[in-house]
Amino acid sequence: MNYSQILQQKKMSADEAANFIKNGEIIGASGFTPAGHPKVVPTAIAQKGELEREAGREFKVTLYTGASTGDELDGALARGKVLKKRMPYQSNASLRSEINSGATEYADYHLSQLAQNLRYGFMDKVTTALVEACDVTDDGKVYLTMSNGNSPTYLQMADQIIIEYNQSVPQELKEMHDNYIPLDPPHRREIPIYSAGDRIGSPYVQVDPQKIKGIVWTDKKDAAAPFREPGEVEKKIAENVVDFLLHEEKKGRLPKGLPYQSGVGNIANAVLSQFATLPGISNVTLFTEVMQDAFFWIHEADRLNFCSTSALTFSAEGNEKFVKDIEIFKKKIMLRPQEISNHPELIRRLGLISMNAALEMDIFGNVNSTNVLGSKMMNGIGGSGDFCRNAYLSIFMCPSTSKGGAISNIVPMVTHVDHNEHSVEILVTEQGIADLRGLSPVNKAKKVISNLAHPDYRDYLSEYLSYGLEHAPSRHIPHVLGRAFELHQRFIETGSMKLS
Amino acid sequence: MNYSQILQQKKMSADEAANFIKNGEIIGASGFTPAGHPKVVPTAIAQKGELEREAGREFKVTLYTGASTGDELDGALARGKVLKKRMPYQSNASLRSEINSGATEYADYHLSQLAQNLRYGFMDKVTTALVEACDVTDDGKVYLTMSNGNSPTYLQMADQIIIEYNQSVPQELKEMHDNYIPLDPPHRREIPIYSAGDRIGSPYVQVDPQKIKGIVWTDKKDAAAPFREPGEVEKKIAENVVDFLLHEEKKGRLPKGLPYQSGVGNIANAVLSQFATLPGISNVTLFTEVMQDAFFWIHEADRLNFCSTSALTFSAEGNEKFVKDIEIFKKKIMLRPQEISNHPELIRRLGLISMNAALEMDIFGNVNSTNVLGSKMMNGIGGSGDFCRNAYLSIFMCPSTSKGGAISNIVPMVTHVDHNEHSVEILVTEQGIADLRGLSPVNKAKKVISNLAHPDYRDYLSEYLSYGLEHAPSRHIPHVLGRAFELHQRFIETGSMKLS
Repeated sequence: MNYSQILQQKKMSADEAANFIKNGEIIGASGFTPAGHPKVVPTAIAQKGELEREAGREFKVTLYTGASTGDELDGALARGKVLKKRMPYQSNASLRSEINSGATEYADYHLSQLAQNLRYGFMDKVTTALVEACDVTDDGKVYLTMSNGNSPTYLQMADQIIIEYNQSVPQELKEMHDNYIPLDPPHRREIPIYSAGDRIGSPYVQVDPQKIKGIVWTDKKDAAAPFREPGEVEKKIAENVVDFLLHEEKKGRLPKGLPYQSGVGNIANAVLSQFATLPGISNVTLFTEVMQDAFFWIHEADRLNFCSTSALTFSAEGNEKFVKDIEIFKKKIMLRPQEISNHPELIRRLGLISMNAALEMDIFGNVNSTNVLGSKMMNGIGGSGDFCRNAYLSIFMCPSTSKGGAISNIVPMVTHVDHNEHSVEILVTEQGIADLRGLSPVNKAKKVISNLAHPDYRDYLSEYLSYGLEHAPSRHIPHVLGRAFELHQRFIETGSMKLS
Repeated sequence: MNYSQILQQKKMSADEAANFIKNGEIIGASGFTPAGHPKVVPTAIAQKGELEREAGREFKVTLYTGASTGDELDGALARGKVLKKRMPYQSNASLRSEINSGATEYADYHLSQLAQNLRYGFMDKVTTALVEACDVTDDGKVYLTMSNGNSPTYLQMADQIIIEYNQSVPQELKEMHDNYIPLDPPHRREIPIYSAGDRIGSPYVQVDPQKIKGIVWTDKKDAAAPFREPGEVEKKIAENVVDFLLHEEKKGRLPKGLPYQSGVGNIANAVLSQFATLPGISNVTLFTEVMQDAFFWIHEADRLNFCSTSALTFSAEGNEKFVKDIEIFKKKIMLRPQEISNHPELIRRLGLISMNAALEMDIFGNVNSTNVLGSKMMNGIGGSGDFCRNAYLSIFMCPSTSKGGAISNIVPMVTHVDHNEHSVEILVTEQGIADLRGLSPVNKAKKVISNLAHPDYRDYLSEYLSYGLEHAPSRHIPHVLGRAFELHQRFIETGSMKLS
């Protein structure tokens, strides 16, 4: 490869690059899921933080990213105790612990909204963009790697730019990005995407090369968790979802060719594996925020139409496949900013079928995606709000119980509401499906209890509903506040929601 | 006036028209706020229901509308006990009572979503459209009156159509409607509106004249409540809102010319009256779902640019002004389907400043707009979810207390979540403003308590927060479930949230 002059002239060590990071810095980093995040400079920043602290000097930074990132970024900075604040989503064990101890402030944000709200000036401006790239040209064209995230806006907004130039990713990625920043009101126009593969922007992000303070060379690969075979419960949930979709198609309520959005994790993988294997499914279009190995299953079954995403999070095995057949995949994949992959306008226009995991669901059709016991942050809302609210059809999935049955994920009242009765349409557990469209709260409750709850908890939930219909302030939503969190309270006191 | 043949040939009495309504009918009616709803046929339907019941026959119907309507529709059918189900919004005392007793099923729905979800086949199909019109042509052009609502979709979808031909409204209304039904996925394109006054559809709704079963002539006027002078608390809230907006403009975070959306009621009126009187405000654009008399104040102050809305709900005095200067107003007003007035794509593109009332707010930034004590339906979510989620800036307002101080509207945890921490940005009471953008939950709580809560409740709320920081499962959102509804419980038991 012929390296550009800038790649050579601005080459420096991670420690040298970390020196550009001052106390109070607002860092906008690349990375969406463990894909495309900076992998060596963050450790150097954490080390600088420790040295500064030892010298008695304050050293804290704010970190904005795309979404969750790899341990080399979120884990390193969290363990280095340098994170004052973090937005808009995370899923790292070390960072989660900092958030829940109160050491790191966390503002949990719809993924489609952070970039525009930064441009509007609603939050502290990004001072440093820290972005992984697979190429930088002398005139300031930055080519992103395995995710796009919020990098275009961070690169545009920052006072200074630090690049991690990653040599381990294929150069063909250059052709797979579609960078596009909408104009802001009052000058905004439509986002001119009408099918998943439409290209509206440019393959690179243009920056002022003067702003690039340093380029750190690396060859560290993204390290997504290896694929785990779905368990029985996950398989059953997936079967229920696919049964429902086929039923809707048969009823004429699901036009052919609507794109799918699918969250991450084993339930999502189980659903997509059905798309790859079940008879009668073809021509699958994905318009999603992150794509995992399921991409290959659908492709190998010759059922993949196109995949628009903000990140590619492949296992080591997946990455090998990706590199091997990249000439094919570059015609099948588009990497978009999360402001576009998750844009309400596009989700509603294209008619997405949205499938996301829930922590808990309540009998009246509200969903908790984020906070255990209304308090403890698990990961964050991510794109689930963007997708759920605007989808053609919105599905939330979870097992009916957790912790060997000690927790019912179907409860009278969720302890934190991320998606509410006005937006939630289809709920699924391994027990069955509850189609809540157009139902009153009481009719929702009856269906959720009989179709979704684990048999061990059905009697309790039915009794709660009956009690409410007698004693609640209203029979519209027959909640009795003094009893609404009984199951959770019992869990806190005894370690189980079960009676006796 | 020259009446079309169809107006004369299909003319019939309300009783005759009501005979087309059978048990189990799904009625899609015009009407959005007490504006443009059918005013004589519903009473006849209610009477038919009573006769049927007396004859021992079941007679129940489902009613879809635009939003709330007048007492002649919702009140008449509710008191007639003929409503099995009602969507998507209401604000009528008789109907509210039926909903809360459990006699009428109520599905509380985002106003932008009902029409498309009916077209998708997600709910029971409209069998009869019952629509107020100011003209019908022999080839089936129906001209709507003071609201647009969901009428275009109902007229298109219904098997049979009943028209209330209202002679009391000005014929110039014909030029003020812009009827437009988007294509459905996978064929949907952008909604091509780029400023509030853009016309994209037609002034009439085209129907098959064969489907028109009857036309009932009436001259009943819409009867909006007379304007009430805002009280001291409402004025103070309005001043706080306007102070905040001017502050944002000064900080360069509020571009000139962004359109305003404003809910109904006295707080909204108080805010808009400031727009009409405060120095330094000009060229006000409204992109909203309902316009009240405030329209005239802004117009008379020569500050009105344009008003796009789905309904005109004027007082008797306002109506006189409207008719008198209609040649001017028809260039200043566009009446749109609520699917368009409340469309996420347009709200986000145009950059709306959204201002809506709340029932209660919690310290962590969640808003209850609908259900008292998590149970009793007040009105419904209406458009507040459409606007809040996609607005440039989203403001919720309420007095810090109700019932002479016995209720704090600032609570530890709202009992029903219509808008959550991920979407709610600015909260306002007469005590002050809390700008929550980008804050962690704990920092939100500190600000809400000190800026918004009534002094009588600040100590309690601070103590709850401190207690949570010691005892909650996490310091991210330091909720203690056993205490979260303490204030509400005290109110249920003693009639006041106050200690002693």
